[in-house]
Amino acid sequence: MARSVGRIFSGFRCFGSLPFGNPPLKTQCSSVLFRTTSERTLVHALPKIFARKPRDFSLPNSSWGKEMMQLYNHYNRLSKETAEGQEDHGERWTRLPSYNRTLKYATGGVYLSKIIQSKARLFTRNIRDPGTSFEYVIFFRQDKLKCACIFQAGHLLEGAPGHVHGGAIATMIDTVTGTHASLLSAPVMTANLNVNYRSPIPLGSTVLIESILDKEDGRKIYISCRVTSTDGSKLHTEATALFLSISVSHLLKR
Amino acid sequence: MARSVGRIFSGFRCFGSLPFGNPPLKTQCSSVLFRTTSERTLVHALPKIFARKPRDFSLPNSSWGKEMMQLYNHYNRLSKETAEGQEDHGERWTRLPSYNRTLKYATGGVYLSKIIQSKARLFTRNIRDPGTSFEYVIFFRQDKLKCACIFQAGHLLEGAPGHVHGGAIATMIDTVTGTHASLLSAPVMTANLNVNYRSPIPLGSTVLIESILDKEDGRKIYISCRVTSTDGSKLHTEATALFLSISVSHLLKR
Repeated sequence: MARSVGRIFSGFRCFGSLPFGNPPLKTQCSSVLFRTTSERTLVHALPKIFARKPRDFSLPNSSWGKEMMQLYNHYNRLSKETAEGQEDHGERWTRLPSYNRTLKYATGGVYLSKIIQSKARLFTRNIRDPGTSFEYVIFFRQDKLKCACIFQAGHLLEGAPGHVHGGAIATMIDTVTGTHASLLSAPVMTANLNVNYRSPIPLGSTVLIESILDKEDGRKIYISCRVTSTDGSKLHTEATALFLSISVSHLLKR
Repeated sequence: MARSVGRIFSGFRCFGSLPFGNPPLKTQCSSVLFRTTSERTLVHALPKIFARKPRDFSLPNSSWGKEMMQLYNHYNRLSKETAEGQEDHGERWTRLPSYNRTLKYATGGVYLSKIIQSKARLFTRNIRDPGTSFEYVIFFRQDKLKCACIFQAGHLLEGAPGHVHGGAIATMIDTVTGTHASLLSAPVMTANLNVNYRSPIPLGSTVLIESILDKEDGRKIYISCRVTSTDGSKLHTEATALFLSISVSHLLKR
């Protein structure tokens, strides 16, 4: 899925704009191997630098409801290689693993020593109790450059009574579109997020979050996103997001 | 601060747009007294319906750092009534209490029975361990119709390694602007959130989030917001938000 091991930093998402003109560090960093906080697919390429295998939060657990499981099974079936003799369905998705903090498992020299904070956890995976907050799995379809995320909203995400907080919805949109952008380019940061809330999402609901690439323009990546009911009949939220490719050094300087 | 007890629902924030034309339930609901998930100032008016006093998360705890405490003390001093004989500083702020879920403490008939979910918790207050996620307190200045929020970002809010997740920043912006809107009007919902990320926020930082009312136009409330370093010298994020006044029945129908 990612285009090369040299792009391992492409999951290294940032949140804020940075000065233009600094040369990307892709070449410089390509040999520094560590997992990032974003969903990555290259875990199999990096077994030696992990102290132990981290938990993959994108796999089913007992809290996943019927809708979540049905959609997961649907995309998972489409992510399998076409078996010999079977008809190729032509729609190939890849599930993206997801961790709560993987830098702590890695070693990597001066860059890592500056940014490792052992207690830190990815915002969307900071509660381990299954089903209480963000349950989600992201699939990526490379031929169409689009993502589909199945999201089940737990009872700890409340905004208005009985409904999901607008910030939690924005968080999932940022997560899906940011993951999408990071699969297309070097490390990225969110520059803009523009979210239109169309109808509230009840707590406990499962929804579908789909993102598509609108365009790439130099360092800019434009992605749009829709949050709908799982059958697509009800629109909950629409959003656009702009990401900038950055160099890792930007974060380290701050 | 709130203009009348009849506006007790004004903290009842929703997230998503709703059909126009439904008559507001302000009159109908003004006698239904219950605390909402948003910051409210009318807690003193509602002592009888609470089973026990909930924890106010906007008060200092041991995790608050020096910057957080300095700013808290600054606004807190300005929130006190001017003592007799002292000069009126002319800048009067009010601290807004904040709870993790207060509907569970209330009783209120059919409306409440539909929306009470005993396990639900406000997204920004769903982790009780002090200092690990969102530590914040919001102050409101009524004469200028503006809010100031002091926000200390814990290590469970990570996005890019060592930095606050863009979704967590959007969540705080939605929280501050939504609280602001709810103080000006009947129950509101977020219709749009447009966030520009200018520079990343390191985990553990304390920042200042300030919101001002841009305009009110019928049911629409436009608010803009800036996230800066505590001395205002560094801009982290800028945002605009649009809220719609709604009737409580909108949520109950969904």
